[in-house]
Amino acid sequence: MKRVFNFSAGPAVLPEDVLRQAAEEMLDYNNTGMSVMEMSHRSKAFETIILDAEKDLRTLMQIPDNYKVLFLQGGGHVQFAMVPMNLMVKGVADYIVTGQWAKKAYAEAKKYGDARKIASSEDKLFSYIPDLDKLNISQDADYVYICENNTIYGTKYNTLPDTLGKVLVSDMSSSILSEPVDVSKYGLIFAGAQKNIGPAGTTIVIIREDLIRTELAPYVPTMLQYSVHAENGSMYNTPPTYGIYICGLVFKWLLKLGGLDRMHQINKTKAAILYDYLDQSKLFHGTVCKKDRSLMNVTFGTGNEEIDNLFVKEAKAKGFDNLKGHRSVGAMRASIYNAMPIEGVVALVDFMNEFEQVHHL
Amino acid sequence: MKRVFNFSAGPAVLPEDVLRQAAEEMLDYNNTGMSVMEMSHRSKAFETIILDAEKDLRTLMQIPDNYKVLFLQGGGHVQFAMVPMNLMVKGVADYIVTGQWAKKAYAEAKKYGDARKIASSEDKLFSYIPDLDKLNISQDADYVYICENNTIYGTKYNTLPDTLGKVLVSDMSSSILSEPVDVSKYGLIFAGAQKNIGPAGTTIVIIREDLIRTELAPYVPTMLQYSVHAENGSMYNTPPTYGIYICGLVFKWLLKLGGLDRMHQINKTKAAILYDYLDQSKLFHGTVCKKDRSLMNVTFGTGNEEIDNLFVKEAKAKGFDNLKGHRSVGAMRASIYNAMPIEGVVALVDFMNEFEQVHHL
Repeated sequence: MKRVFNFSAGPAVLPEDVLRQAAEEMLDYNNTGMSVMEMSHRSKAFETIILDAEKDLRTLMQIPDNYKVLFLQGGGHVQFAMVPMNLMVKGVADYIVTGQWAKKAYAEAKKYGDARKIASSEDKLFSYIPDLDKLNISQDADYVYICENNTIYGTKYNTLPDTLGKVLVSDMSSSILSEPVDVSKYGLIFAGAQKNIGPAGTTIVIIREDLIRTELAPYVPTMLQYSVHAENGSMYNTPPTYGIYICGLVFKWLLKLGGLDRMHQINKTKAAILYDYLDQSKLFHGTVCKKDRSLMNVTFGTGNEEIDNLFVKEAKAKGFDNLKGHRSVGAMRASIYNAMPIEGVVALVDFMNEFEQVHHL
Repeated sequence: MKRVFNFSAGPAVLPEDVLRQAAEEMLDYNNTGMSVMEMSHRSKAFETIILDAEKDLRTLMQIPDNYKVLFLQGGGHVQFAMVPMNLMVKGVADYIVTGQWAKKAYAEAKKYGDARKIASSEDKLFSYIPDLDKLNISQDADYVYICENNTIYGTKYNTLPDTLGKVLVSDMSSSILSEPVDVSKYGLIFAGAQKNIGPAGTTIVIIREDLIRTELAPYVPTMLQYSVHAENGSMYNTPPTYGIYICGLVFKWLLKLGGLDRMHQINKTKAAILYDYLDQSKLFHGTVCKKDRSLMNVTFGTGNEEIDNLFVKEAKAKGFDNLKGHRSVGAMRASIYNAMPIEGVVALVDFMNEFEQVHHL
């Protein structure tokens, strides 16, 4: 068995301990005589799995009691529709567009009401977070929408916008659990699991109870109503049971590690190793505004496409996989989510240094 | 490690060979150095997995070229909305209500047009399939909807309704791959994977190309448009990658076994062992109309709730799990999907026989 250092932006690296446990339990989970995959979602064994997962996530993120935690399907893309369908009561919402995903969410919301783009960083290929002091928040906005960490570009909101009391909705897909957040500042947080939590196909929604409405437009599908899932403990229909199980194992791994304060420390250390190297390199340079740098997705390049491609190719041969930047941006991206060990980042920088010695003119 | 005989209605038993392979490949799939769970859905390795899965399913079901195969999320419940949202062009559809799932599908469809209940077996707790010779198919129906195998009750359409040329839509969740079907008789087939294919969270849709429309009502979410998924090879967003991988392993297991003709033979043998025993038993009796019996879900009882409960309890202690009937029906149900080995059915009947000797007065 070999393992590479996997810098994929998502689906992404998972803790090796979690994968080992999943493999060991594959044919017989906890003496039930069956795999979690084979288990009725109404069984006692699975009930314990989903309740534990919720409890552990609540502990990790210190989620207040007046928030529901939902385990859904469909990824961020289904949330792009669910958020406006459920939250646009007065019919207005403000969107800050910091990348492709926020842009798609904004376009989808326009189907359901007056979605307004109040800021954007598209002018410079989303390489920064817009000035949050100059936001023109709509007086009648039902919510203000952000994509908190922009996976493709490597930017992150390092402070939250002042929404003037409006509900803040955050797509936290690629930064959830990377650091502590104050959940009470948000009305709704959602995250596809496949970046920093578990397998693709599970979506986590954390929603303040007063935002869970039952009076919706008649065309809203039952499965796209937060109230239906909230009332049924995410078991209105068969949930993605195996995905929830893996998420639960990751939550336990984080708790054992020391929780989100400790994880944040480690993530800052990992990111600093890479950014410090980039800031002194004569070959490589970071591609986004320094103050808006992401801890999770580090984008960089040499400015020369041929050398970029050579780097990605040679890196792969050395066991550093998925370093190619997103097709809309090019160059390189190292996603260093929670499960990427510090050794992976150190080894990558060593290799970049070697590469620089050869290729810097 | 122990394994029980798992008669769960879904999520349900999977082939042990498939689980073993998944466990072995958990940390390093095919020398990629990563788990399938950790793999970018845009990677070559995953592309092979999803293309193989589609190819193998096409081979197994002999799916004609003018049908698309989609791997989606959200289970049958999302299809209850997607079908009318995408297929109700003239605004009329006929539903045959043979159980709770067909009833829910019918209720959801009413949101989007004139859904008509043209037959029902609710009068006798869905213990039979309505007379298909007396259907009043609507002249302007966009489609006729059936739930082909009714998991909760243990009934199945053993002939298909004559739709007078209207498109036939089938929820095949609990019978897909249990026997050969003539796909060309259907306009759309869907199935949640968690009964007879793989893990919960993957939904398979087989749709005739001319039914994939792009001109839909403006409120239809992007993710609920068949055209979007069809145009993008089920990769418009991140699909449930690990679930698709497991489905693919099950398809290969079926091909190795000899395909659906062979599987059907085995399923008939398994079901006959149980039904033949029930038909001569003085304690147990089958609960549905004989001609409508399902090969996958065998419902039975003693007529005495106390004895039923005792049976379920003693059976569980002997390693026969999940025999309790659905809460809306009571008594017992043995789901004997493809992956239930014939030994499991033989052992169950042996145990029923023993139990009968003690408890039959």
